[in-house]
Amino acid sequence: MPLGKDYAEQDCGIARTLEIVGERWTMLIVRDCLYGVTRFSDLQAHLDISKAVLAERLEGLVMHGVLEKTTGPGHPEYLLTPAGRALWPLINAMAQWGNEHGHGGRRPNRSFRHAACGTKIDIHGFCPTCRTVPPVSDIESVPERKSSRTDPVTERLRGPHRMLDPLR
Amino acid sequence: MPLGKDYAEQDCGIARTLEIVGERWTMLIVRDCLYGVTRFSDLQAHLDISKAVLAERLEGLVMHGVLEKTTGPGHPEYLLTPAGRALWPLINAMAQWGNEHGHGGRRPNRSFRHAACGTKIDIHGFCPTCRTVPPVSDIESVPERKSSRTDPVTERLRGPHRMLDPLR
Repeated sequence: MPLGKDYAEQDCGIARTLEIVGERWTMLIVRDCLYGVTRFSDLQAHLDISKAVLAERLEGLVMHGVLEKTTGPGHPEYLLTPAGRALWPLINAMAQWGNEHGHGGRRPNRSFRHAACGTKIDIHGFCPTCRTVPPVSDIESVPERKSSRTDPVTERLRGPHRMLDPLR
Repeated sequence: MPLGKDYAEQDCGIARTLEIVGERWTMLIVRDCLYGVTRFSDLQAHLDISKAVLAERLEGLVMHGVLEKTTGPGHPEYLLTPAGRALWPLINAMAQWGNEHGHGGRRPNRSFRHAACGTKIDIHGFCPTCRTVPPVSDIESVPERKSSRTDPVTERLRGPHRMLDPLR
């Protein structure tokens, strides 16, 4: 369906967000970056998408200031900018809504917990124990059941993992 | 790009959410329903999309339990279910992120305020004055500048509007 990808006539922050992260796969790339994935090959292995689609999405995220691409020696890495890290509340809300309403009763694969107290945060990112909204760097992602995937990113996420800690 | 619309190999709540609300236009339909729009003709006028695309998206939202379609006499209406209303934190996070990072410095069109105190809520939905996360029914959407659109929904949103209050 040739619908374009902007929403020029929609004067609204939601439309602007969708123009930057609304394309297919883009939010899952941001998710992986928040987990600490930084390399093209790891993103590709974890997402099972073509190099062409991944390269196009990454280019868009760099252009819109969500990711920064390193230019030093060795493999380039993709790092979240402050605007990219600020997508955390959106990613958390999507994960929690999907876990609650999208799994048909299946147990969620992972939970997000406040590292300081181990409590699951809610859909707003709020920790009910500490009565605060912890920053993403204080969140731990904890597996709730075993994944059947065997790619390198899934393997490195077998145990609890602090968000943003590099997963190389 | 024939990429399909599911994410069968992604065992993750975010992927489940994207399968339900990730298609082009769907989140803007949910936005309008949270504003209180209930009618096909109003959605179409506010979104400027074809009847075919709108009908297909609404059918998907009804099928996934996000909307309920009334069947009484008169025009059918589309009403958010509890699962649909639970998308509020996601819509709020998208609006706030887009206002902050997607407008290229342009003033946001509307703000979301806690009706009880008039304070702008943050990207987490948190009211810093009352130190609470108000439910969507306690949020007022307030225009911050005049929209140039002239469709019936935009006209009815010229002033402050309590979220979920029917906009007919």
